[in-house]
Amino acid sequence: MKTSKEYKQSLKEMKSNIYKFGELIEDVTTHNATKRTIEGHSQIFDAAQNDKYKDILTTKSNITGDDVSRYLSIIGSPEDMIANVRMKRIMFNLTGTCTGGRCAGFNAINAMWATTYDMDKELETDYHIRIKKWLENSQKNDITISGALTDPKGDRSKSPTMQKDPDMSLHVIEKREDGIVVRGAKIMICGVAAANEIFIMPGTGYKEVDKDYAISFVIPRDIENLTIVETRRPSDMREQEEGYDIPVDIGGITQAYLLFEDVFIPKDRVFMCGEYSFALKAVMNFIKPYRAAIGGCVAGQGDLMIGASTLMARANGILEKVFSEKITQMIINNETTFGMGIAAGVLGRKHPSGVWIPDTLLSNVNKVHVARLPYDTKRIAQDIAGGIAETGCLPSYKDINDPRYGDLLKKYLKANCSGETRAKIARLIEWLTIGAGVPGCMHGGGSPDGAKMMINLNSDINHYIELAKRLVNIKEDIKVEHRKK
Amino acid sequence: MKTSKEYKQSLKEMKSNIYKFGELIEDVTTHNATKRTIEGHSQIFDAAQNDKYKDILTTKSNITGDDVSRYLSIIGSPEDMIANVRMKRIMFNLTGTCTGGRCAGFNAINAMWATTYDMDKELETDYHIRIKKWLENSQKNDITISGALTDPKGDRSKSPTMQKDPDMSLHVIEKREDGIVVRGAKIMICGVAAANEIFIMPGTGYKEVDKDYAISFVIPRDIENLTIVETRRPSDMREQEEGYDIPVDIGGITQAYLLFEDVFIPKDRVFMCGEYSFALKAVMNFIKPYRAAIGGCVAGQGDLMIGASTLMARANGILEKVFSEKITQMIINNETTFGMGIAAGVLGRKHPSGVWIPDTLLSNVNKVHVARLPYDTKRIAQDIAGGIAETGCLPSYKDINDPRYGDLLKKYLKANCSGETRAKIARLIEWLTIGAGVPGCMHGGGSPDGAKMMINLNSDINHYIELAKRLVNIKEDIKVEHRKK
Amino acid sequence: MKTSKEYKQSLKEMKSNIYKFGELIEDVTTHNATKRTIEGHSQIFDAAQNDKYKDILTTKSNITGDDVSRYLSIIGSPEDMIANVRMKRIMFNLTGTCTGGRCAGFNAINAMWATTYDMDKELETDYHIRIKKWLENSQKNDITISGALTDPKGDRSKSPTMQKDPDMSLHVIEKREDGIVVRGAKIMICGVAAANEIFIMPGTGYKEVDKDYAISFVIPRDIENLTIVETRRPSDMREQEEGYDIPVDIGGITQAYLLFEDVFIPKDRVFMCGEYSFALKAVMNFIKPYRAAIGGCVAGQGDLMIGASTLMARANGILEKVFSEKITQMIINNETTFGMGIAAGVLGRKHPSGVWIPDTLLSNVNKVHVARLPYDTKRIAQDIAGGIAETGCLPSYKDINDPRYGDLLKKYLKANCSGETRAKIARLIEWLTIGAGVPGCMHGGGSPDGAKMMINLNSDINHYIELAKRLVNIKEDIKVEHRKK
Amino acid sequence: MKTSKEYKQSLKEMKSNIYKFGELIEDVTTHNATKRTIEGHSQIFDAAQNDKYKDILTTKSNITGDDVSRYLSIIGSPEDMIANVRMKRIMFNLTGTCTGGRCAGFNAINAMWATTYDMDKELETDYHIRIKKWLENSQKNDITISGALTDPKGDRSKSPTMQKDPDMSLHVIEKREDGIVVRGAKIMICGVAAANEIFIMPGTGYKEVDKDYAISFVIPRDIENLTIVETRRPSDMREQEEGYDIPVDIGGITQAYLLFEDVFIPKDRVFMCGEYSFALKAVMNFIKPYRAAIGGCVAGQGDLMIGASTLMARANGILEKVFSEKITQMIINNETTFGMGIAAGVLGRKHPSGVWIPDTLLSNVNKVHVARLPYDTKRIAQDIAGGIAETGCLPSYKDINDPRYGDLLKKYLKANCSGETRAKIARLIEWLTIGAGVPGCMHGGGSPDGAKMMINLNSDINHYIELAKRLVNIKEDIKVEHRKK
Repeated sequence: MKTSKEYKQSLKEMKSNIYKFGELIEDVTTHNATKRTIEGHSQIFDAAQNDKYKDILTTKSNITGDDVSRYLSIIGSPEDMIANVRMKRIMFNLTGTCTGGRCAGFNAINAMWATTYDMDKELETDYHIRIKKWLENSQKNDITISGALTDPKGDRSKSPTMQKDPDMSLHVIEKREDGIVVRGAKIMICGVAAANEIFIMPGTGYKEVDKDYAISFVIPRDIENLTIVETRRPSDMREQEEGYDIPVDIGGITQAYLLFEDVFIPKDRVFMCGEYSFALKAVMNFIKPYRAAIGGCVAGQGDLMIGASTLMARANGILEKVFSEKITQMIINNETTFGMGIAAGVLGRKHPSGVWIPDTLLSNVNKVHVARLPYDTKRIAQDIAGGIAETGCLPSYKDINDPRYGDLLKKYLKANCSGETRAKIARLIEWLTIGAGVPGCMHGGGSPDGAKMMINLNSDINHYIELAKRLVNIKEDIKVEHRKK
Repeated sequence: MKTSKEYKQSLKEMKSNIYKFGELIEDVTTHNATKRTIEGHSQIFDAAQNDKYKDILTTKSNITGDDVSRYLSIIGSPEDMIANVRMKRIMFNLTGTCTGGRCAGFNAINAMWATTYDMDKELETDYHIRIKKWLENSQKNDITISGALTDPKGDRSKSPTMQKDPDMSLHVIEKREDGIVVRGAKIMICGVAAANEIFIMPGTGYKEVDKDYAISFVIPRDIENLTIVETRRPSDMREQEEGYDIPVDIGGITQAYLLFEDVFIPKDRVFMCGEYSFALKAVMNFIKPYRAAIGGCVAGQGDLMIGASTLMARANGILEKVFSEKITQMIINNETTFGMGIAAGVLGRKHPSGVWIPDTLLSNVNKVHVARLPYDTKRIAQDIAGGIAETGCLPSYKDINDPRYGDLLKKYLKANCSGETRAKIARLIEWLTIGAGVPGCMHGGGSPDGAKMMINLNSDINHYIELAKRLVNIKEDIKVEHRKK
Repeated sequence: MKTSKEYKQSLKEMKSNIYKFGELIEDVTTHNATKRTIEGHSQIFDAAQNDKYKDILTTKSNITGDDVSRYLSIIGSPEDMIANVRMKRIMFNLTGTCTGGRCAGFNAINAMWATTYDMDKELETDYHIRIKKWLENSQKNDITISGALTDPKGDRSKSPTMQKDPDMSLHVIEKREDGIVVRGAKIMICGVAAANEIFIMPGTGYKEVDKDYAISFVIPRDIENLTIVETRRPSDMREQEEGYDIPVDIGGITQAYLLFEDVFIPKDRVFMCGEYSFALKAVMNFIKPYRAAIGGCVAGQGDLMIGASTLMARANGILEKVFSEKITQMIINNETTFGMGIAAGVLGRKHPSGVWIPDTLLSNVNKVHVARLPYDTKRIAQDIAGGIAETGCLPSYKDINDPRYGDLLKKYLKANCSGETRAKIARLIEWLTIGAGVPGCMHGGGSPDGAKMMINLNSDINHYIELAKRLVNIKEDIKVEHRKK
Repeated sequence: MKTSKEYKQSLKEMKSNIYKFGELIEDVTTHNATKRTIEGHSQIFDAAQNDKYKDILTTKSNITGDDVSRYLSIIGSPEDMIANVRMKRIMFNLTGTCTGGRCAGFNAINAMWATTYDMDKELETDYHIRIKKWLENSQKNDITISGALTDPKGDRSKSPTMQKDPDMSLHVIEKREDGIVVRGAKIMICGVAAANEIFIMPGTGYKEVDKDYAISFVIPRDIENLTIVETRRPSDMREQEEGYDIPVDIGGITQAYLLFEDVFIPKDRVFMCGEYSFALKAVMNFIKPYRAAIGGCVAGQGDLMIGASTLMARANGILEKVFSEKITQMIINNETTFGMGIAAGVLGRKHPSGVWIPDTLLSNVNKVHVARLPYDTKRIAQDIAGGIAETGCLPSYKDINDPRYGDLLKKYLKANCSGETRAKIARLIEWLTIGAGVPGCMHGGGSPDGAKMMINLNSDINHYIELAKRLVNIKEDIKVEHRKK
């Protein structure tokens, strides 16, 4: 398995195809816009070799039996799901933000492992063999794989083929003997700058006419004809500055638009091509572990918000017991998404391909919590930390170090600690609650409304009604006719 | 294992010592005040012999290897805890209310199994041997055991020995060679009318001076010098009436005051007597599984509230999709307490005595949810069901069947079903939300404030602070001095 | 103006037509099922003569200039609306529950005062002259008037004329020279037992075909061919018992089903008959002041829940500052519905008839709060008060006074006060949160879903969108076509 | 009264003493860091001359009877408070953010108008005469006045004189015949860049020993020895860029640190100096109207969040009715803070000086809402708007216009409108929810915990308890002794 140094070296050796602010990023490991996310992802390699975290960060390959990164493994048991949830919490604790260049890829591998198995069974394709071969090789090289789901989609009320522009979802434009050519885009993709390869998942809602959109494959990040443009983030210009206005050097997040201008994908890297009836299954196989495990991620955020806000309380000279009720509520919020992730993971079932699939209902319930509770936790963190942290209401690092008035600023920033320490804590809370470190939990892995739809689909109202009828011994059949209003 | 018929017979054979409304209840299985809870508890025996529920309701004895009721078993694994959570949900679904005559007893057995083990280890007592012998016998006879924790306590700001009246908590007044004599009371005890025996737990907060209060033992419900007075419940007088104003015949709940007027307990039934430093441990061992598993119980309530309120919507001629957002929220509430129960159960640890002890933090987080979410679910149920169900706003069964105007009432009660069916549904919702079927989830198994205190005690603020400090590389030590205000 | 003694005498002189539990209530002022609500309504007369409350409870007649009960007045200004909100809070404080036999009547008078004015203007009817004459007389006699809105309705998906049974809403079956004959029912009507007359409002959703349902009139409560059946309430059988299990003697609530078996209404008491296009306006004129002022009522409930739960804390020996955060939240809940009522009342407009009509949007927003916040306040009250109050978990008055074990119960009920006092406080909390004193705030004055519909109808999304477009200078017109799914 | 052009000219003529990023801002009206807030404040002058807003934005001077800006007026009636609440809502609607350079000044004028009146009455000072003269002149010149409350404070557990550094709160260091010299700082002060003068308020918690800290005065913004350093805001570097990544040109917010290095204040501009017992009163007089009226401000934010998120829904091709429940909740949130502001304003009392003082309890209840509800509204706005708006997840303006790949980005950003329009809407939501436009509502005008303390101080628990005791006729006096834990 790679060291973090080898990991960075592997990124340096790749071709440049990532842009931000109109500028080509020559070396992602040193460029201000990307180096922090790479430092964050590097900690995965360090943690894998740290006794404290090794059992969580690594596991045995189900293919070779060798030790591999858990991010490259097949989730085969409740214990694996528990480790997955814990891993996300730890990595957020260590980086202060998202290591999204790995977790979406991890879920994509597992989703397509199961889906290709079913496709091969039903359609006599050879996709499962292809993914197995690719995965074995990837484990051997210990590569970093990000995952890409979201298409631009255009007008949400229309399917891909009904759009005026056929490219609004990624699609095949040519099938060759040796592979396929694709056009379109994937957008808002986390951590591609930190990845060696990108795993492309299909979207959903496809009928036969849309079959050219039902595609899944994996590509090197620097493949020909792929252009990557990084999105902005709140306060991202500070990443270009000196000092602690971006307070964290060892973690960062990026999200990108991937522009496919007729990219050729060799056959052995294609895991779905036209099997539109399996697209939804693939996505379902993706979201179940994703929406379970994200509870760990969100708990990891919350841990830091407790730490940062109580640290600010101490910095202000206040004992944290004054905020006891609020801290308890933050803990409740954290442990709820964490616990629901554990429960969804444990109450799953084994797919014939060997993948352990978490419980649909609990995963989606957790997705709803994940879209609510961290907002509450952020609010409480700002409440405890006071006005200085609420909107980062303090002068810039440059001003604090200005020769004319910097000393005065430091003087007035001090409290129960030095002014600079207090400034750093305030910037950390800003960064965690409205800054460049905020991950997009509301819509990451799909919207809460999508989760609610899944909750409804997976709940049988008649079951509940029968329980009630039995209890009071009602035999009468009560039906409501569907009527036009 | 017993049939429900044998179970009822065992109750009939006991002596009468239970009162309500100043009246001695001669036969608990037929008296209006107690028969419903006994019907509810009887379903436990039926379910144990029903293929659909058998795996949940029964398990192997860790003493004899024989099939026993899960309620009489030692919880030995995460799987046992999952089954426990599921069992509580199922029993609420089947009875519409609490079968509290068994679950507190179940927890007491497990709590004292572990605590006596530790006591014997540390103090060279023989309590564990006693409880083992007693439990083996109880399993053989398949008896029903309720559990009793709560003392009257008197002035909450004072310990038992500081009270003006020494009897405000149950205590030993005489120690004999062959046993002990106790005086005092246990109050608000669920389901004793349905029990063969009662398991007494100690309270907490005892110092050496309070050691006579640190007692645990098990007694036949009809032991000499024990007087039991049932408490009132909302609308409990309806239980004396004919008709469906109490809409459920197959479930009910009772809570009682147990008055110990110098009751003699034989030695082999005493599991703690004076070991005050183990009282808190015993209670902790009780509340961890209890506060985890109650999540299943509360989910079971919620299931019925979904069923009853959507049934009323249909009865009113309205499709439940109109209330889709509300139903989804009820499901989220249910699955949250259920899921957190699963998670707390799974993330436990094995006690040397063989008992699997759930996670302290998640158990207590769940207790807080249990004290909040069902209130929200009840509110939504009343919202969906309309004014008729909100306060049970419809005439009595007697009026609906009055020869003069009963037909008119039925005429005006009908909607998309008969008037009588609609009346029954309304009564069910009333019963579930503000009626005789409402269990006391807020304070059952301890108050939410107690749970919050446990959450604080089990969370290390410094851990969170260290995570934050590491992230932004703060070395400065920030301490707040304790000061008088 | 009447004294409370004269008021009771006026009720005694009426004919008997009210039933409960199959029994005709001979004298509503002494019968257990109705006497408490009459005591509550009597306090209105006492308060009107008490210097502390006189300014709120009385005002000048806009017809004669004489002092009249505010409940019989026309609301003519923001100050009148403020007094209305305060009056509801005071009356709840004084009675512990609803004096619904007056406030719905008060709103009906005002709603029909404005609606008849418009009808006369537009249709050249003489309804306004009729209501004026009737009101002048009613003020002179200082009578008590309840109001009745809700029809049984039957299948909610169908209009009155589409029902299989034409009587599912109250309707005219015969028009005579001297009056009309009506058939049907009004249901869940508050406080008719305490009223001299009943003001009937029309429903809504009527088209021309439904015009026989568009009726409004006022009747003596004991009019011929009207049968009244009281509904049950939680724990209402306790009202038949001795002692404090119903802890309040000076307040109570009743709700009734009114059965109209071809009741003749003389012409000068009819204020709408067939003018279906005014039915909705009448109801809108009703709900605006109602949904504003109910905020005061709900605040009055909350005041008592604060008082009762902190009293229990003291009774338990606990200082209320332990619950400071919870008490603050209860206060916030109370003052929110109160304040929103004030704001809705103040931000109204003057109707040409002289009636001051509160703001539609704020009234309906308050209705939503009224359907949520008291549930939260009840939950907190139960939280503070402990298990004894949560479900009224203590023995009956009869048991507490039993010669055999009553002294023991009193002994164990005592804490930082006598056992009986503590029992009374527990019963008060039970009564306020799940007992016979609970008013139906969720659906009283219409459902929260109805209020949300009104909020949507009274908000112009395009206004908000234009604000946003102006700010970022977007000129592009963005329209979404309505499409079939 | 001034035009917006004259207003800007008045700012241009002032001396430069404001810094940001280590750079002296020569002209606040054109510098990127300050020009947007000045555009926002300019709209106040435009609105004052716009028939649509004139009645809200202007009023009659209580000194001269002339038309003056409402921001320079004495609030003399409930109607003035209603206009104040409406004004804040309108100005937020028009600028998309805070015009804090005026509202804090407005409240300071009113607070000190009343406080100086009381001081003169009690202490025979001449402060009220001074403020009257100054205000008359200010009205005549139609100047813009910001207000400054917050001191750095240092260690919160210590009073000003207990701090190691005596300058941690602003204080007098020299008293001269003709004025005073002050040293220290005021921090997080809104809109000073847009102001002609700054009104300094005292802090609270002062005893006699702290009397040099009890000071209030008004200064020209460019007074000698005052250095102003602007704080950072989320994404404030974008304000230096071209394009729409800061989407709003006509509004902006600034917050500053004011460094007083021995500033001389002439006597006639000093309104408190040493009268420590009036400092708390002054602040109370400030926070009552402030915490009432901020409800209008927060409603104005919410209006834009409804507009921006529904506009994005349309841009995505989705009808807003899909989000109906969510939009209704946003409206409820907005109207709650607005309505509570109205209610607090209306239920006030007249101070002898002529100032109308809003209700303490309702003002502070509203402050708590203001610290909660906008967080909920932001969450919903992000929920509706989708991932693109949640963290501003789209490429920069520069990238969207890049010659190499900008057209591709526009292609993939388009939906039911052009890509650029959609980008602008996403940036607006980012700016409103986590960007440079976010005002600090949580702590602005004091923290929610401070408001809760005020709620407790202004509520008499014994009043509530007496209501409860009367109702159930309890005579027993129940007292809990204060005890050491």
